[in-house]
Amino acid sequence: MIKLASREGGEMLVARKNREEVSLTKVKGCIIGGEQLAVIAGPCAVESEEILKETAFKVRGCGAAFLRGGAYKPRTSPYSFQGLGEEGLKILARVGEDMNMPVITELMDSEDMELVVEYTDIIQVGARNMHNFALLRKLGKIDKPVVLKRGLAATIEEWLLAAEYILAGGNNQVILCERGIRSAEPWTRNTLDLSAVALVKELSHLPVLVDPSHATGVRSLVTPMAKAAIAAGADGIMVEVHPHPEKALSDGEQSLTPKGFSQLMRTIEPVARAVGRRIR
Amino acid sequence: MIKLASREGGEMLVARKNREEVSLTKVKGCIIGGEQLAVIAGPCAVESEEILKETAFKVRGCGAAFLRGGAYKPRTSPYSFQGLGEEGLKILARVGEDMNMPVITELMDSEDMELVVEYTDIIQVGARNMHNFALLRKLGKIDKPVVLKRGLAATIEEWLLAAEYILAGGNNQVILCERGIRSAEPWTRNTLDLSAVALVKELSHLPVLVDPSHATGVRSLVTPMAKAAIAAGADGIMVEVHPHPEKALSDGEQSLTPKGFSQLMRTIEPVARAVGRRIR
Amino acid sequence: MIKLASREGGEMLVARKNREEVSLTKVKGCIIGGEQLAVIAGPCAVESEEILKETAFKVRGCGAAFLRGGAYKPRTSPYSFQGLGEEGLKILARVGEDMNMPVITELMDSEDMELVVEYTDIIQVGARNMHNFALLRKLGKIDKPVVLKRGLAATIEEWLLAAEYILAGGNNQVILCERGIRSAEPWTRNTLDLSAVALVKELSHLPVLVDPSHATGVRSLVTPMAKAAIAAGADGIMVEVHPHPEKALSDGEQSLTPKGFSQLMRTIEPVARAVGRRIR
Amino acid sequence: MIKLASREGGEMLVARKNREEVSLTKVKGCIIGGEQLAVIAGPCAVESEEILKETAFKVRGCGAAFLRGGAYKPRTSPYSFQGLGEEGLKILARVGEDMNMPVITELMDSEDMELVVEYTDIIQVGARNMHNFALLRKLGKIDKPVVLKRGLAATIEEWLLAAEYILAGGNNQVILCERGIRSAEPWTRNTLDLSAVALVKELSHLPVLVDPSHATGVRSLVTPMAKAAIAAGADGIMVEVHPHPEKALSDGEQSLTPKGFSQLMRTIEPVARAVGRRIR
Repeated sequence: MIKLASREGGEMLVARKNREEVSLTKVKGCIIGGEQLAVIAGPCAVESEEILKETAFKVRGCGAAFLRGGAYKPRTSPYSFQGLGEEGLKILARVGEDMNMPVITELMDSEDMELVVEYTDIIQVGARNMHNFALLRKLGKIDKPVVLKRGLAATIEEWLLAAEYILAGGNNQVILCERGIRSAEPWTRNTLDLSAVALVKELSHLPVLVDPSHATGVRSLVTPMAKAAIAAGADGIMVEVHPHPEKALSDGEQSLTPKGFSQLMRTIEPVARAVGRRIR
Repeated sequence: MIKLASREGGEMLVARKNREEVSLTKVKGCIIGGEQLAVIAGPCAVESEEILKETAFKVRGCGAAFLRGGAYKPRTSPYSFQGLGEEGLKILARVGEDMNMPVITELMDSEDMELVVEYTDIIQVGARNMHNFALLRKLGKIDKPVVLKRGLAATIEEWLLAAEYILAGGNNQVILCERGIRSAEPWTRNTLDLSAVALVKELSHLPVLVDPSHATGVRSLVTPMAKAAIAAGADGIMVEVHPHPEKALSDGEQSLTPKGFSQLMRTIEPVARAVGRRIR
Repeated sequence: MIKLASREGGEMLVARKNREEVSLTKVKGCIIGGEQLAVIAGPCAVESEEILKETAFKVRGCGAAFLRGGAYKPRTSPYSFQGLGEEGLKILARVGEDMNMPVITELMDSEDMELVVEYTDIIQVGARNMHNFALLRKLGKIDKPVVLKRGLAATIEEWLLAAEYILAGGNNQVILCERGIRSAEPWTRNTLDLSAVALVKELSHLPVLVDPSHATGVRSLVTPMAKAAIAAGADGIMVEVHPHPEKALSDGEQSLTPKGFSQLMRTIEPVARAVGRRIR
Repeated sequence: MIKLASREGGEMLVARKNREEVSLTKVKGCIIGGEQLAVIAGPCAVESEEILKETAFKVRGCGAAFLRGGAYKPRTSPYSFQGLGEEGLKILARVGEDMNMPVITELMDSEDMELVVEYTDIIQVGARNMHNFALLRKLGKIDKPVVLKRGLAATIEEWLLAAEYILAGGNNQVILCERGIRSAEPWTRNTLDLSAVALVKELSHLPVLVDPSHATGVRSLVTPMAKAAIAAGADGIMVEVHPHPEKALSDGEQSLTPKGFSQLMRTIEPVARAVGRRIR
């Protein structure tokens, strides 16, 4: 019943049948897909160097290896804060350099690719762009890791085939990220689909992260879902942290404070160990 | 944003605000909602005394405290196997007695309530009947625990209010069970919603189980989802086990063998410990 | 690709392959499934004889042949108005008699079947009970037409197989009713699926109605969706009308006033003619 | 309850409150949003000049004013036929010129914008790119009409705000197109949401088309859904037509033959008249 489409000449490049081990991605000494869970943390958007630095300092202290922060923000309304753009990229790069943390940010348009590639270590394709095939094709031609978020209504197979676009172009450094699918539930922003994580681990050699912040949109659910994600086999988590969530320019409701993130890290540690992983 | 509806005179009876601790349910010395996880296992349907006995013996040996088995089966087609009815109830009761395991079975119609109450220890309301308010109302009048499965497309609030129907009638022994919601994903039978588990634990004092068998419909996903469920805070799991899944009269594709179930139990044990629970 | 499951010995009883023409249902001289569209109108719930009479008088004047009104109401909360029960049935029967209109009401529990059969001409199975197989089976044994609403998340095949339960019991007078499926759209109560109407007409000989009131939950959408339903091939519509929607005990937001219903009828008339149907 | 978000300084630009009449779009003498329905027809993809010419000739004869054909095709798999690219644009332009039909094609990447603008009269943004905000922003800067398809899981408000991105850039020639939303129904490709059409007409001055081919994915449903769309108030339809659907390189299952399209046009004509529209 569950059978990933094949291609002329054999299995899809993403298929586990092609490669038994998880395809590790290494960035500046940090690994995604290994025994140590990849923990990516940071604010939704880069708002200022000061805030980002404070956040980075604190999340690194709790064990986060990677720093996230959006310079280009996909917003439903054209009148919402759209991110600092190139200025945001520069701040992110400087803070990452200072803190010795690889940085990850979202690329929304192929026109910005050169700039984003220059300033960041890992490039994120957001859920709304998972089906932007032109962008995926171009990401196949670069030599930087790509985090590919699952589309809001994408099936698991469509998600794997979106990754296949990048691999088919020659870029093997693809990391998947489950961030919830759209459902009729009004109390959560999306519905986190952890069976997708287990299924992707079964079918593909690509590492899989989980973003419990966007998946739930509810602060109190981030830690329980991080625990569940790790138990389900995720290779890491991506978490929104902001020193003052109530003042955040976007996604404040789902952001943890540094203190909340510290608790999250302590809480997930025994779960990680229980499934043969570690967080440091 | 997340606010359970209230009732005249105060909070809903299911609301955690009314009661800080989880409302434990005790059946024949077994507890649901305590430190020890409630593990319910058995075949989808009671097919024969022999098969049920073999299954019960094996799942009990692995640590399952409760025995499940359907006597009345909700089937999409009127021409599919519909369960053994009263004969199935009798077999279930005898095997439960022999094995010293409390038994649970689904009640589909209020007409059968007397019979089902007589023969079983816990009564299950299936997903398709979660909104059968007449049935819920009658279950409020009995003195037996009720496992209330979440409807295929029910919101979390609707699920809690369905439980409220039973509590409002005077029966406080209600246990919720998340079993996946319907989504557009073709590779799984349903989409397991573990954020619902965490949210229900936050809003209500009722214990919550997870049924990873129906939630996924895929054998290889049952164990990863059981681990994730426990990490998310579930008070127990309900798992379909059949000695010969390929010959099962229903749900063979998602049933574990006794050996698979034994592996599941060994696998979830460290996760349970990591979150302060135990399986025996 | 689209293939209704078959049964031992041939096609399903609901299948069009068994019967080329639409299976007409006649009740007290009124027909469902014929050239004349079946128009069912009335309040969500029977609230009083006075209000029902006023409504019936007005909708009949506009061309509605059938009178609807709930005596038993499926409500999400146990603390909401639950309908007048037997008293409501009696009022409905008296008003139907006076106005010479066949009446239709929802049956929620098999225990009430005798009563409901006694007082009404057509029995409705609500969306939340579409998968109440015990109820469906009992409705197969009576000699009254049944309107079977589609479940909130039911696939088209599941809906047809639910109808098959009734036909398999010996009752051929089944009328389907599309009333919207649950989706992630927050602005409407449900999402009306008119492709289901066209598909059911292709696959089955059963007549199909559309309930634009529940499907949308929005007064201003009722008339456009009634027009679309008729253009899609529906055999009739079921519309909520209340003389004072702002005071209605349930579903006021989606109820038309008698004046609004009169406009609806004038508006759909040319569409009905355009597809070879008529409303009187 | 239904209230479109506002912006600083007043209503959204797409809001009907800003403009009572439908905002007509005129292209080479053809109008979208007027009394005459806009009928757009043609193959899914431009495959060859011969096939396109044959199709154009036939659909024009039946009353289609606009010719569609994809040069860049969004395909789930990187190994499927991806369209002829620039060559496809040239063929489309030549055939449109010859036949005196304005042409419409999908733009998938901002990099191709100059080319697509040069060769086509109307630019389509596909469902998978509805949330490609960078692309929308650029389309706000050009002087060509844009057809904006609704995203697979987009709410109606998100869809209107995506259009707002284009209007906010200065391009007022936006036409919306409903093409079905993703649901759990396996028998249809998507679920056509006609309440969205009625709701958009109520809230916005933008014209709205319906694409019954993609919305259903089933040939036999295209005509009934075209009728329903027009009855619901759509300003036009977009239909896939191919002289040999069984040989089409994509979407053959949902394409009408020229003969089927001719029947569709004859069938919708009286419905159009019934709602005060015409097809020629």
